[in-house]
Amino acid sequence: MAKIRVGVAGYGTIGQRLADGVALQGDMELVGIADLAPTLAIRALHEKGMPYDLYLVDGADKSQFDALGIPVAGTFADLIGKVDIMLDSSPGGVGAKNKVLYEKAGVKAIFQGGEKNSVADVFFHGYANYEKGLGQNYLKLTSCNTTGLIRSVDALDRAYGVSKVAITIIRRVADPGDYHRGLTNALQMEKAPSHQAVDLMTIMPHVDATGILVHTPVTHGHIITVLASGRDGRKITREEALAVFQAHPRIRVVSIDEGFKGNASLFKYARDLGNPRGDMYEIGLWSDSIVESGNDIMYAINIPQESVTIPETIDGIRAAMRMQLTREEGTAETNRYLGIGKFKK
Amino acid sequence: MAKIRVGVAGYGTIGQRLADGVALQGDMELVGIADLAPTLAIRALHEKGMPYDLYLVDGADKSQFDALGIPVAGTFADLIGKVDIMLDSSPGGVGAKNKVLYEKAGVKAIFQGGEKNSVADVFFHGYANYEKGLGQNYLKLTSCNTTGLIRSVDALDRAYGVSKVAITIIRRVADPGDYHRGLTNALQMEKAPSHQAVDLMTIMPHVDATGILVHTPVTHGHIITVLASGRDGRKITREEALAVFQAHPRIRVVSIDEGFKGNASLFKYARDLGNPRGDMYEIGLWSDSIVESGNDIMYAINIPQESVTIPETIDGIRAAMRMQLTREEGTAETNRYLGIGKFKK
Amino acid sequence: MAKIRVGVAGYGTIGQRLADGVALQGDMELVGIADLAPTLAIRALHEKGMPYDLYLVDGADKSQFDALGIPVAGTFADLIGKVDIMLDSSPGGVGAKNKVLYEKAGVKAIFQGGEKNSVADVFFHGYANYEKGLGQNYLKLTSCNTTGLIRSVDALDRAYGVSKVAITIIRRVADPGDYHRGLTNALQMEKAPSHQAVDLMTIMPHVDATGILVHTPVTHGHIITVLASGRDGRKITREEALAVFQAHPRIRVVSIDEGFKGNASLFKYARDLGNPRGDMYEIGLWSDSIVESGNDIMYAINIPQESVTIPETIDGIRAAMRMQLTREEGTAETNRYLGIGKFKK
Amino acid sequence: MAKIRVGVAGYGTIGQRLADGVALQGDMELVGIADLAPTLAIRALHEKGMPYDLYLVDGADKSQFDALGIPVAGTFADLIGKVDIMLDSSPGGVGAKNKVLYEKAGVKAIFQGGEKNSVADVFFHGYANYEKGLGQNYLKLTSCNTTGLIRSVDALDRAYGVSKVAITIIRRVADPGDYHRGLTNALQMEKAPSHQAVDLMTIMPHVDATGILVHTPVTHGHIITVLASGRDGRKITREEALAVFQAHPRIRVVSIDEGFKGNASLFKYARDLGNPRGDMYEIGLWSDSIVESGNDIMYAINIPQESVTIPETIDGIRAAMRMQLTREEGTAETNRYLGIGKFKK
Repeated sequence: MAKIRVGVAGYGTIGQRLADGVALQGDMELVGIADLAPTLAIRALHEKGMPYDLYLVDGADKSQFDALGIPVAGTFADLIGKVDIMLDSSPGGVGAKNKVLYEKAGVKAIFQGGEKNSVADVFFHGYANYEKGLGQNYLKLTSCNTTGLIRSVDALDRAYGVSKVAITIIRRVADPGDYHRGLTNALQMEKAPSHQAVDLMTIMPHVDATGILVHTPVTHGHIITVLASGRDGRKITREEALAVFQAHPRIRVVSIDEGFKGNASLFKYARDLGNPRGDMYEIGLWSDSIVESGNDIMYAINIPQESVTIPETIDGIRAAMRMQLTREEGTAETNRYLGIGKFKK
Repeated sequence: MAKIRVGVAGYGTIGQRLADGVALQGDMELVGIADLAPTLAIRALHEKGMPYDLYLVDGADKSQFDALGIPVAGTFADLIGKVDIMLDSSPGGVGAKNKVLYEKAGVKAIFQGGEKNSVADVFFHGYANYEKGLGQNYLKLTSCNTTGLIRSVDALDRAYGVSKVAITIIRRVADPGDYHRGLTNALQMEKAPSHQAVDLMTIMPHVDATGILVHTPVTHGHIITVLASGRDGRKITREEALAVFQAHPRIRVVSIDEGFKGNASLFKYARDLGNPRGDMYEIGLWSDSIVESGNDIMYAINIPQESVTIPETIDGIRAAMRMQLTREEGTAETNRYLGIGKFKK
Repeated sequence: MAKIRVGVAGYGTIGQRLADGVALQGDMELVGIADLAPTLAIRALHEKGMPYDLYLVDGADKSQFDALGIPVAGTFADLIGKVDIMLDSSPGGVGAKNKVLYEKAGVKAIFQGGEKNSVADVFFHGYANYEKGLGQNYLKLTSCNTTGLIRSVDALDRAYGVSKVAITIIRRVADPGDYHRGLTNALQMEKAPSHQAVDLMTIMPHVDATGILVHTPVTHGHIITVLASGRDGRKITREEALAVFQAHPRIRVVSIDEGFKGNASLFKYARDLGNPRGDMYEIGLWSDSIVESGNDIMYAINIPQESVTIPETIDGIRAAMRMQLTREEGTAETNRYLGIGKFKK
Repeated sequence: MAKIRVGVAGYGTIGQRLADGVALQGDMELVGIADLAPTLAIRALHEKGMPYDLYLVDGADKSQFDALGIPVAGTFADLIGKVDIMLDSSPGGVGAKNKVLYEKAGVKAIFQGGEKNSVADVFFHGYANYEKGLGQNYLKLTSCNTTGLIRSVDALDRAYGVSKVAITIIRRVADPGDYHRGLTNALQMEKAPSHQAVDLMTIMPHVDATGILVHTPVTHGHIITVLASGRDGRKITREEALAVFQAHPRIRVVSIDEGFKGNASLFKYARDLGNPRGDMYEIGLWSDSIVESGNDIMYAINIPQESVTIPETIDGIRAAMRMQLTREEGTAETNRYLGIGKFKK
């Protein structure tokens, strides 16, 4: 079977990781990436010997690339013309403009969380609603927090039924290397309910979700506390919850006693594993955070914001291109190529 | 009526504020404070002209104070001999040793949250269990987070009944000026359930409480999100909760739209108010954080960790000395002398 | 003698402190302050009972103030019409626009560091070039870092002669309560030479100055290391430098052994002193940072960025209004009313 | 020729990187690593399939490793018995104890900066004093800051002569994943002169060095500003300095305009390059920080604290084992195997 040809628009934090993730899929071909300026990410690509072809979007100044000796493979239109599907990780709002080009070229696309939901036919999560993405032209991925959150809630829901969740998002405010959106010695409130709770209800409409988001001045992963109520008052026990989490390929159950003291431990561990960029595809879930609150279950997860949406985006390719027709098959193929779940017994 | 004579042991972050708070009470006399070494706090006291007499605890080297020209009024035993009640804000564990001296001298004492519960006859909160402290010899105050948390939960409970709370504590890890317990670019987990939830149940035994605590690298106030369930499934609406919070003298309802963007805004506002040290006795509560989760109510509060326990400690003096016999009267007197609630309409 | 009538435009971090500082001067009258919107600072002013009259600048929506019950004394033009001199601490660039109004009304003005030098007749520092400001209509103050830096370099220069300085500014990136210009887990470089070094040369043209500025994610005071070379190769010894610093009213010599471990200690100490807002007018200078580098002298100072320019701005009023005709007399009056130098032996 | 057999004691931040670095050397064999407990680093080693054999130091509880299924190759004595030279990156002070074992076994060793100088025969830096290490039994590496600093000063010195340096170290206070030595919203002073300046003089005794160190709450690399004076007053121009830095294999000249805004940019770039753990062996040096101060030259460098000492430690093996007899040959071999300098034109 011919490999599915994939392009990536926007070679930033997410775009770099999408490209790397697609390049690992045995049944996909990364045709190239497109960007605007010789950013550090592009300079690093050059220093690595251009493993991916670079195309320039409209407005790019090719002479800047020429001056640096960075080879350019063509225009954005050239890239679109060679692919079956585009992964659009452009800055928020640009994706909607790019969609016009995709439509014109008859190319499918998957947008990231920064775009409005209306850009897409379906708001997508690989585990929660894979089948809704089947054959669709335009998908939008849930944002990083929502993607990780839904992994855990969907798992509980499929096993025991979930009717209601209340979350507290302790949000990392910037990525390592960001200078423009920092926060210094402050916890910053967002108006409730958080959009992540609202988004969860779009994907899982049978769940009542709300929550509060607080920004914190750190860079290595969001932490979310989740209080989940079973359907019809059914109690979910600590042991039941733990069993479900341990069985999920994209959830890594960790503990403080093992040395996972916080979000920075997961980043350190991923670096020590030798994962490229110190990334981790799994969310972390602290077993020693799981407590019962009456019939409800409470727990804390860690969201590696830079990489967590990569697997679900690749699931999206599989759904949109009808490469696999069920969530079980689609996510399993993604996991296999990304090496997810290998550490599970 | 003779004024109640009060001493303060340990002139640190809490001790300084206890001394200032007692000095404002028209029916109390601050006899003096006791400490071990010429810390910055003692040096500042000296530079201010020694508004409070200084006594030295065992182990202090008086020559250090002499060399700096800091007058010493006597020994710790001297201070104990002159007071009706001691407020003990010594480092954790020292209070238990001091208690032997208090017992010997027949002097009552109130300990801060760092001591074990067993040091005291009653674990005390001015609003939640004032009457339990009446005439008692040894009280222990709830810790800063628990004190502020209980203010809000007790208020809801008295108005509508509360059966269950699940909290997420986003803890500031150090005070301004601390260098020894910092955290840098990390969110650190504590094992659940948090001791604050457990402590709440000690004070309010009819409430089922649990929660998760995460340390964050900031200094200006903890933020706690609270999910409270009404008794017997009674729904507590957003409007009901807001009304109760607005009526509480020690809760300041604020909003993001007014400019209270986070914990640092409350600190800035207290500085701009001209409050000594930029302190605030009230907890902040964001009106735009209050959301309904099914029949439950969720909201976020800000705990000014350096000063929040001062009013409840002074309530404790009133209870232990039987100065006022009801929580309404006791807390009202404390509030009047501290200027709490003046800003309420 | 009639008091000099002073107005303040812009009631932000600097404006609030200018107003408070002027209100302490026995020979000045604070007529009022002007601002645009009901910020937290204005709300705090209201909660304090409006110690200062509030005037509204063009573009303000009076109905917002009415709705909050905040009394308005008049328009910006009204304020300008009642004063001899305006202190303009508007956001950068607004001062230049306001100057047109000041010129029309024949009112003098002092601008803060955010404006361009061209807005003023003289770039001013109370200790370094007081006489240049005598009788001038428009002064511009040096920025916070430059103001504190010049205090120390001018002191060395007058005592022993300074020909050259090389500085490293370890800049706090935001004030407590700022959310919009933060930095998270990063040290950010500025292109060298830093503008503070260039500005120093404008005020002290006989000194060759350069330096490097690095932003750091903290809020309580910049730290600057200074390497100063004596004139004609004259060695400045550690003892000589220390003697000069100890004699300066606006320099507070501190040490690590006393407990001044860093910038946060100075803030804590000012809070414990009971200084309004925890402010300090003096720069800190660590005696245990002073080291000789060949014939050069190296030391580190702490700049309390929120309050450090207040004394020199008030010096500027004295110079512009010819209240005192020499730097010695002008700065001494400012110091007396602000209580600066009281702690010196 | 037989490969030099190397062991690593202490598999922490430095030890992991030493092991990886040695494993890349074509003329060395990494025999194994030794540690005490199943830390996250050891768990990651296990999850990676044990690329290196693990030996247990005295006091280790083997049953902990057995319970986790982590294979153990033997005791610390077993490891020492199989190697020619040990790289000791144990916690500070432990290396001195280990030395007794090394001496008994007749094995050479290289200690890291945490040990006292007296542990070793020579205090070593690959570029500055390679020849002093030739054939020696016990070397001690300079600390991370000193290693990077000396690279730049030695380069200037060899080209133009350096007589004096004055440095300001803006120190990152913790590594990513550290929780125990953090600092929150504070800049912390150390008593001057900094030990790094003193250490530089030990290695380069003809240079007069002093400096001030300030701790900052960040994790991604120290920044040092250096003011260097030429010998006999010779002026070093900006162009001369830049030429020398650009020619040095272990110095990466970067600029703000390229996007290297601060220390976090270098970490991000190393991650994007695909470097294991996001490490970089080179120090960064900002071309737009280089300024002339009279006849002196000032510039700023970035020290990647986790990895910067790895190349010089491997140089140390080459010197101690007499693998290459000159600094040019020794450092060139290290560079070749580590891929250092490839990006240079």
